[in-house]
Amino acid sequence: MRIGVIGSGALGLFYGGLLQRAGHDVHFLLRRDYQSITLSGLKVTSPRGDFHLQQVKGYRNSTEIGPIDLVLIGLKTYANQSLIELVSPLVSDETTILTLQNGLGNEELLATAFTAEQIVGGVAFLCCNRGEPGTVHHLDQGSIRIAEFAQKPGSRLEALSKTFNQAGIPCTTGSDLTRIRWEKLVWNIPFNGLCALTGLPTNQLLSGPETRQLITEIMQEVIAAANQQGLSEAIDATATIEPMLQTTAGMGAYRPSMMIDRQQGAPLELAAIYANPLQQAARTKTPMPRTAMLHAILQATEPPTS
Amino acid sequence: MRIGVIGSGALGLFYGGLLQRAGHDVHFLLRRDYQSITLSGLKVTSPRGDFHLQQVKGYRNSTEIGPIDLVLIGLKTYANQSLIELVSPLVSDETTILTLQNGLGNEELLATAFTAEQIVGGVAFLCCNRGEPGTVHHLDQGSIRIAEFAQKPGSRLEALSKTFNQAGIPCTTGSDLTRIRWEKLVWNIPFNGLCALTGLPTNQLLSGPETRQLITEIMQEVIAAANQQGLSEAIDATATIEPMLQTTAGMGAYRPSMMIDRQQGAPLELAAIYANPLQQAARTKTPMPRTAMLHAILQATEPPTS
Repeated sequence: MRIGVIGSGALGLFYGGLLQRAGHDVHFLLRRDYQSITLSGLKVTSPRGDFHLQQVKGYRNSTEIGPIDLVLIGLKTYANQSLIELVSPLVSDETTILTLQNGLGNEELLATAFTAEQIVGGVAFLCCNRGEPGTVHHLDQGSIRIAEFAQKPGSRLEALSKTFNQAGIPCTTGSDLTRIRWEKLVWNIPFNGLCALTGLPTNQLLSGPETRQLITEIMQEVIAAANQQGLSEAIDATATIEPMLQTTAGMGAYRPSMMIDRQQGAPLELAAIYANPLQQAARTKTPMPRTAMLHAILQATEPPTS
Repeated sequence: MRIGVIGSGALGLFYGGLLQRAGHDVHFLLRRDYQSITLSGLKVTSPRGDFHLQQVKGYRNSTEIGPIDLVLIGLKTYANQSLIELVSPLVSDETTILTLQNGLGNEELLATAFTAEQIVGGVAFLCCNRGEPGTVHHLDQGSIRIAEFAQKPGSRLEALSKTFNQAGIPCTTGSDLTRIRWEKLVWNIPFNGLCALTGLPTNQLLSGPETRQLITEIMQEVIAAANQQGLSEAIDATATIEPMLQTTAGMGAYRPSMMIDRQQGAPLELAAIYANPLQQAARTKTPMPRTAMLHAILQATEPPTS
């Protein structure tokens, strides 16, 4: 399969690298890592075994890639103003567009420019950071969960899932993309923001009783809002929160992507992870006071955009 | 009047300086500023006119001061574990003990060691920072409001108020110390914590619509909790919040004491300003979700105590 990776951060490089290792023809749109990867290839360190791809097809401009079978989008949502322009050269009528970006609003944005039925959405449960240029550190987890945006799940979705599984990327399919996205937000909304704001990794927030309680309360808010979004099946707070806290505790001193973004002086994914969910919750008049507070403080502490 | 100042930070030095200038015999317990003040006196800069007290009685140890008419306490509440020990040498049966410290719990702590009827509580509306050793910068405001802790307001309280007014410290008396303390918390709880957490002065928080809204919501929480504390008269949210925001806007880029504490790596007054009010609110089952969240985050980001 010819695959184009738009947004070659940790997620894009890791999954693209696994897909190439499995024999697919992968094309990476690169920025920071262009020189290093086109010269020396891509190195992945992982508890499941390190690997090194000597020859990697890297591009500075997506027009050089051209139409392709699958676009895999890992672009940071704060760069979404460029999303359509970056993806367009890769899309023909036969192309599947899969966004694994964070938060809400990405499929809707793609649907303003492309046929809705071409779009698949998904979430990644992946602990992965970039190292020096050309290197990605896979730390833990790595599964993805995908769902159709505008059509009933069928053979296309199953084939896509099979492609991922065969490449060593555990992939499940779902029938309710909204539910899948909100389930992920149950984790992202407390941990991304609180870690970015405090500079503390996940385990330190979980070890304090007050912050653990706060995380639980924020998760309750997110689940209450999610359950007003017309989900096929409600999210069960009891069955969700405690296991999620325990899984997170098992991840050790994990730094969520938003914490890394802030430490590196990058913008935060505030629209996708906070503003858009808050807007959806407001439409159904579901109060999210702690989420709104976290968003307000994160926004106030963003450096002014130039 | 013989006056002893315990806790000679910005507040203690400013009010003590004004009282000495008015002719009172003021004794300052000093730490950081001891050498500078005993050598060169105390300099006060103020929009109402700078002044310099050449001869100031400074002490390293409160036993050197001995029993006195009025103890004026400006100690940071995070040092309250030393409060009784520092105040005791100054107290005879005739001594009035006035605490102008922040938050809740200070009079109660004093009452564990001294006669409750000797204690007067008060709050200061004062924008004042310490400069280099021996210098205090008065920026704005400066009034105080005092009330009896354990007896009906009478001639003692009026005499104390007159002493302050005659020294150029606008002072009013009240009959409900609980109400006076909570009214001050309506300002302290949002601004102290949010400024300390974000590193932004008051005017920047007021200029963003989301943070201004958040401040309003926190003030509403504090007022709702206050009005469950058996006040003589309820605090009116409408009549309180908007004028308070406008007064604060008029203070410009003000850095509350807790913000300065954090910037200087000092502990924060979390017990007096957050934990104790939250405990009082919990007793009456008044929810303060945003206040609790702010407290949890501030606490999590405190450096570990040695």
